[in-house]
Amino acid sequence: MNIGIVGLGLIGGSLGLELYTHRQQTQAQISNNPSASPSPSYRILGISLEQKICDIAVKRGVVDEASVDLSLMSQADIIFICTPIAAIAPTVAKLIPYLQPHTILTDVGSVKKPIVENCSALWPNFVGGHPMAGNTQTGINAAQHHLFVNKPYVITPTANTPLESIKIVESIVDLLQAKIYHCQPEEHDRAVAWISHLPVIVSGSLIASLRQEDNPDVALLAHYFASSGFRDTSRVGGGNPELGLMMAKYNRDALLRSLQSYRQTLDKITTYIEQEDWQTLEKQLHQNHSDRLKFNL
Amino acid sequence: MNIGIVGLGLIGGSLGLELYTHRQQTQAQISNNPSASPSPSYRILGISLEQKICDIAVKRGVVDEASVDLSLMSQADIIFICTPIAAIAPTVAKLIPYLQPHTILTDVGSVKKPIVENCSALWPNFVGGHPMAGNTQTGINAAQHHLFVNKPYVITPTANTPLESIKIVESIVDLLQAKIYHCQPEEHDRAVAWISHLPVIVSGSLIASLRQEDNPDVALLAHYFASSGFRDTSRVGGGNPELGLMMAKYNRDALLRSLQSYRQTLDKITTYIEQEDWQTLEKQLHQNHSDRLKFNL
Repeated sequence: MNIGIVGLGLIGGSLGLELYTHRQQTQAQISNNPSASPSPSYRILGISLEQKICDIAVKRGVVDEASVDLSLMSQADIIFICTPIAAIAPTVAKLIPYLQPHTILTDVGSVKKPIVENCSALWPNFVGGHPMAGNTQTGINAAQHHLFVNKPYVITPTANTPLESIKIVESIVDLLQAKIYHCQPEEHDRAVAWISHLPVIVSGSLIASLRQEDNPDVALLAHYFASSGFRDTSRVGGGNPELGLMMAKYNRDALLRSLQSYRQTLDKITTYIEQEDWQTLEKQLHQNHSDRLKFNL
Repeated sequence: MNIGIVGLGLIGGSLGLELYTHRQQTQAQISNNPSASPSPSYRILGISLEQKICDIAVKRGVVDEASVDLSLMSQADIIFICTPIAAIAPTVAKLIPYLQPHTILTDVGSVKKPIVENCSALWPNFVGGHPMAGNTQTGINAAQHHLFVNKPYVITPTANTPLESIKIVESIVDLLQAKIYHCQPEEHDRAVAWISHLPVIVSGSLIASLRQEDNPDVALLAHYFASSGFRDTSRVGGGNPELGLMMAKYNRDALLRSLQSYRQTLDKITTYIEQEDWQTLEKQLHQNHSDRLKFNL
């Protein structure tokens, strides 16, 4: 089997690194113990926009072969599209002339409904995926071992996704030691809106609202006094602006749905404070405390 | 000089521990080097509601002497009131019969305007204070060394606070190696509303809004997928309910002022997303990113 990876950044690079290393380790075990199960026979083929990245990927043991030319993907049986979200569907369109009829396409985008809709229309043998792993770094040099271990890897098939293709994607994801989840694309998008995209807007609005302080002495004191509470609550709101923009653009409907609910909740709690309804506020704060303990954080 | 501490919990206990240890270390240095500056001659006297806490405080070297009887404070030249916020003004009222005319009262409450107003009316020689240090633990057994080192210690005098009293409070705070700030009580309350109290409501509303999800599968997936972004943004909102209630009760006006501004900002950003005004949203996200870097977090 030939596994293609288009886009050799943090995710694509770490995926290749993990698969490459797994194969080398298994082969080493077999040469020490000939009765072991047969060696995984896959090759890993990478695509990057830059020849320099291709060279690094081969040198670091991320891929067996890499090219800036998409025609390399004509050898692939399954291709992981690891580009930024905006490039996923355009990449599928560009790949089509090179694909074999049986080739499976899968992606790693953090939003699923629009991607699955667009890509499945272009290539029906498409399996939406989202490994929920990452860090603040980017690029091939940030690629790392064990990035996906124990992290959710969400697979979002539709009613029309070939079952055999889902199984093949899963068999590769299993090698990453990720936790596999299945759900509909829309359920995925609503869930990540709650725990990933809504927090960016909630947290960013905290930073932005402080800018409204009209007393410069108070604003200065707020900067002096800010500590762990403000640090944690404002962290994701002060993160990568490009990522924030992408999630708002591509997950707009689910994000607005969560934002509407958030605003109603904020208004409700504000009213408790305005009306000095301390008993209800206390009940709410206890509920928040116990609700948060139910998350595995 | 006799220093009184009323309330031997995390803050009162750590304050005593630090002053006690400082005196012992300075005395040890003097006995090794008789030409050193003279020994600090203060005694530390503690008050707790429970005899058991008094015994621990003496045993741990937090205070020289402790009692459940406020009459011990008749020996004090300065008294740090380290009770929960709600008990500060009532404690001042109870202390008055025992105070010497020159005794300075100061507190460690996290809200200043109502406390300074009420306590100064009862005892004009009152200096509002707020050491911005702490952790999630409470009680005498959580008392620790170096709790105040490099942390803000805010002093909030009014136009009528005796200058000599401010200086004496400062001379003791200096021994804690805290960073001293001065501001008006109202400025303090507005600044901490921004960086401490608003984040609790913003973060708590995130937890509470998730409860509104009407699709149980989506709610479950949100729990499975929640990771560092949700963890950090929801942390203070899932914190101690009693502390959250106290800050809302005692800093209501400043908190509502920040909440109003926060809601306007949230609505503005939501509108960018609704109207797909991606250019303005991108500008806002960049602004948030650079604004956050200006905090010393």
